[in-house]
Amino acid sequence: MTEQPSQAGRITISVDAMGGDSGPATVVAGIATSANKNPEIAFILHGPEQTLRKLVAKRRVLQGRVVFRDCPDVVTMEDKPSQVVRNGKNTSMWSALESVRKGEAHGAVSCGNTGALMALSMMRLRKLPGVNRPAIAILWPSRNPQGFNVMLDVGADVRADAKDLLQYALMGASYARNGMALERPRIGLLNVGTEEHKGRAELKEAHAMISDFAERANFDFVGFVEGSDIPGDKADVIVTDGFTGNVAIKTGEGTASLIGDLLRQAFKYSPLSRLASILAITSLQRLKKRIDPRRVNGGVFLGLNGTVVKSHGGADATGVSAAVKLAFTLAQSGFAEKLAARVASTAELAQDAAHTPPKAGE
Amino acid sequence: MTEQPSQAGRITISVDAMGGDSGPATVVAGIATSANKNPEIAFILHGPEQTLRKLVAKRRVLQGRVVFRDCPDVVTMEDKPSQVVRNGKNTSMWSALESVRKGEAHGAVSCGNTGALMALSMMRLRKLPGVNRPAIAILWPSRNPQGFNVMLDVGADVRADAKDLLQYALMGASYARNGMALERPRIGLLNVGTEEHKGRAELKEAHAMISDFAERANFDFVGFVEGSDIPGDKADVIVTDGFTGNVAIKTGEGTASLIGDLLRQAFKYSPLSRLASILAITSLQRLKKRIDPRRVNGGVFLGLNGTVVKSHGGADATGVSAAVKLAFTLAQSGFAEKLAARVASTAELAQDAAHTPPKAGE
Repeated sequence: MTEQPSQAGRITISVDAMGGDSGPATVVAGIATSANKNPEIAFILHGPEQTLRKLVAKRRVLQGRVVFRDCPDVVTMEDKPSQVVRNGKNTSMWSALESVRKGEAHGAVSCGNTGALMALSMMRLRKLPGVNRPAIAILWPSRNPQGFNVMLDVGADVRADAKDLLQYALMGASYARNGMALERPRIGLLNVGTEEHKGRAELKEAHAMISDFAERANFDFVGFVEGSDIPGDKADVIVTDGFTGNVAIKTGEGTASLIGDLLRQAFKYSPLSRLASILAITSLQRLKKRIDPRRVNGGVFLGLNGTVVKSHGGADATGVSAAVKLAFTLAQSGFAEKLAARVASTAELAQDAAHTPPKAGE
Repeated sequence: MTEQPSQAGRITISVDAMGGDSGPATVVAGIATSANKNPEIAFILHGPEQTLRKLVAKRRVLQGRVVFRDCPDVVTMEDKPSQVVRNGKNTSMWSALESVRKGEAHGAVSCGNTGALMALSMMRLRKLPGVNRPAIAILWPSRNPQGFNVMLDVGADVRADAKDLLQYALMGASYARNGMALERPRIGLLNVGTEEHKGRAELKEAHAMISDFAERANFDFVGFVEGSDIPGDKADVIVTDGFTGNVAIKTGEGTASLIGDLLRQAFKYSPLSRLASILAITSLQRLKKRIDPRRVNGGVFLGLNGTVVKSHGGADATGVSAAVKLAFTLAQSGFAEKLAARVASTAELAQDAAHTPPKAGE
């Protein structure tokens, strides 16, 4: 450790400057945006120090608020998680997590390879006691008053049994309570229909377990919900396995992106429609802002000793800044500690309530 | 049998008039729309005959083109498929399938309960030899030149093993070839990433099997695709299990519907934006038509002896007419026979290629 972030009282976010699609300049532009808006934030920046120092020197707002950790290696999008866990010690991603592990930073942000980031996070930060599979939670534009729903897991693990789904419900409720100020979040379990007899066996089991836990964990369980409820207003938190969740959000993103492109084409079609688009520009910008995925950029890894935010690999400066803001908000609310306490208090109960016998080693 | 559709040479579609959310008047309005556009179509209409006769009498275009089958019972959205299979003999849904089974009609259309319709179809029409699990295929707006991609399964069965996914690939390719005139469709297998090492075990196995079959079944296999490729242009046919497919399309529909509502709100925001919306109205209508789910209303049941189209339960007359048109197009192209031939010719090969030992009874 060569330096500590200089300002006492500031919340320090550890940022992996490498691994995103558009390179470290975009990451530095993003943290500059955050620094501009938020005087209470400081950074530890991980990557090739010389390059990063030059980029930071151009941003006056960052002066005195960034500490550097020199790392020669970068995790690419093609690297297998298992390789990174074995050989990634000199990467900026590893280093960014190390700052959280050592307590130098209150949370980490990376735009890099999701699988590698999760594998490294599990190895270096370790899972919370009582958590079997960590999950990635994202925010999705919805019809609810808060404007967004929480959905998890969106890809930490392709499998989830009934007990994992119960854990996701508990972690998702805690996230909605602390991150979105919903005192008593409504939890829905994703299925192919809302009738209790539908769907896979593990979902029926999870339905019973989550229902049992609703009262003592202070959330409402609305039962099974469908894909259409992810952007809907029936639930605030949507619980599913990482395979289904990942496909669902990518389908939604792809559909939204197609509609956006077709809308642009429609407005270019004739002189009249071009005029209309000029008159409508503020309305369209308001719409765009409401559903802009960059504004809610950042999947939060839940179930670890420490806060890790995964920014979209293709994030621009606005997206990086949104991910930094999310890490800051969670750090400020003491979310990691609250979640750990919540999981610990329910892990024992969950063990008792499990309808399946515990496996060896649990 | 009291009557036969009167006009020789016409293609007869068997229509379940009941079970949709908005009742038989909507269904009759829908078939009237179809009859108006298409002189080559005739109908057998199933439901309470007195009610249906009154509705049909109001539509001059339907005179002499509709035969009635009186059925006192209706399958509701709440009925369990197993109950309908046991006790549904007097329902309009059962009767609609019976007309296909007896060869009176070239295909059936129903707006009713999907699970019941599939269960009845499997029992009355029987699976094609070589098909383990039938699938429901839908069309989804996409960036491809044909404007739509085929996706299956979207909910016939929540499970699918590697051999089932191979069958879906073969059936989807055949549907794209006959229904969309794509000579050599590109098939993608839905996963959480495009790298070959990602995803669940059965997906890796299916990847190998579909790859083996591409050449002899005359399609291109583009490998794993992601949720964002469902509305994309990398593949023409997206293959997945019914659980994932159902969640994906409902997420996409829900997201599109949310964007539509927000767009309407945006245009109502100020006098200027209201003016813009008037100027833009033809552009917006063009966009709406392009992605209107009613235009592609109709999930086709693949893998049965006969064509069954499931219309959306909430379909209006336009939606019903689109489902009827789909049934007509498939009947006209002799799709059912071509698919049966395709499946039969590959079933034996699939059996040989299966990496898992065949189960008893197969």
